[in-house]
Amino acid sequence: MNETVKHKHRESNEYTDLINRLSRIEGQVRGVKKMVEEERYCVDILTQVSAIQSALNSFNKVLLTSHIKSCVTEDIKQGNEAAVDELCATLQKLMK
Amino acid sequence: MNETVKHKHRESNEYTDLINRLSRIEGQVRGVKKMVEEERYCVDILTQVSAIQSALNSFNKVLLTSHIKSCVTEDIKQGNEAAVDELCATLQKLMK
Amino acid sequence: MNETVKHKHRESNEYTDLINRLSRIEGQVRGVKKMVEEERYCVDILTQVSAIQSALNSFNKVLLTSHIKSCVTEDIKQGNEAAVDELCATLQKLMK
Amino acid sequence: MNETVKHKHRESNEYTDLINRLSRIEGQVRGVKKMVEEERYCVDILTQVSAIQSALNSFNKVLLTSHIKSCVTEDIKQGNEAAVDELCATLQKLMK
Repeated sequence: MNETVKHKHRESNEYTDLINRLSRIEGQVRGVKKMVEEERYCVDILTQVSAIQSALNSFNKVLLTSHIKSCVTEDIKQGNEAAVDELCATLQKLMK
Repeated sequence: MNETVKHKHRESNEYTDLINRLSRIEGQVRGVKKMVEEERYCVDILTQVSAIQSALNSFNKVLLTSHIKSCVTEDIKQGNEAAVDELCATLQKLMK
Repeated sequence: MNETVKHKHRESNEYTDLINRLSRIEGQVRGVKKMVEEERYCVDILTQVSAIQSALNSFNKVLLTSHIKSCVTEDIKQGNEAAVDELCATLQKLMK
Repeated sequence: MNETVKHKHRESNEYTDLINRLSRIEGQVRGVKKMVEEERYCVDILTQVSAIQSALNSFNKVLLTSHIKSCVTEDIKQGNEAAVDELCATLQKLMK
């Protein structure tokens, strides 16, 4: 059942960086929920949500860079050109 | 100390919609964290993060529309033009 | 036939600023076309196109700010709430 | 003096596609300038500028895909890892 799920092992420092970023983002989302609960002013909430979007964008940049430098580069060296098509398809989505 | 914090009361259905959106987004962020913990493939994680960004963008559109239709419109009618400057400054940030 | 086309008079300095921005952008697009004709390297072209996108974004910010400060504010004061709906619909498109 | 300018030869159909896209975009920018000259309504101008931004984004997607499939893939195969760093740096800018 799990055979179609692809995996990738990440080094300890990369793993920790990604998890820390996501924990901070999770905290930021909970913070915005608290702002709504406390009936905070719209503009202050909009500003916080923008900060979360920036944090997610940074997360994606870090992950994409790592993906290209490891997975894609390795696949190309081994003659697996499908990795290139997949990367291009992914970028189309990220650049929407 | 709290006197500079602005507030805005939201109707029950708007409040519930905003909270529900944020709860879903919080769940999505936790889902991405689990993907990293399970060493899932980069492209699958990037795709999920894009979905969160879309959800946050939708949240901001909903909140901004509500802000303009209530706060800004009311302030302009009452001659409070500062609301217009504040809206324009907010949009500058959202359109970065 | 022309009666459905809406117009807005702009002050001389705003008009000149908008036209100057568009002339510069037009020059930038022609510059990119020349780069393609001269078989310039992809990355250098991508960078120039990004600069054009920033310039167009700045143009839209300037025009949107002016629109809100004049048209929208005036319409709201005169009880024309349709301007608010139109602004919100426009922002939905700009925040896509 | 010209020795630091990098070049890339593009096939005839790719070249024609890129030039056609840029000619259309140039025409769109001139169209917006004409709208400003004719004192057209802000919202109509904003909508046209959004269309230009979409067209530029499509142009960049096409060029980036071609860049990855030719330049980057070739460089990696030849052991030139600098192409990977350059691609990642370019994507950081495009994902701002």
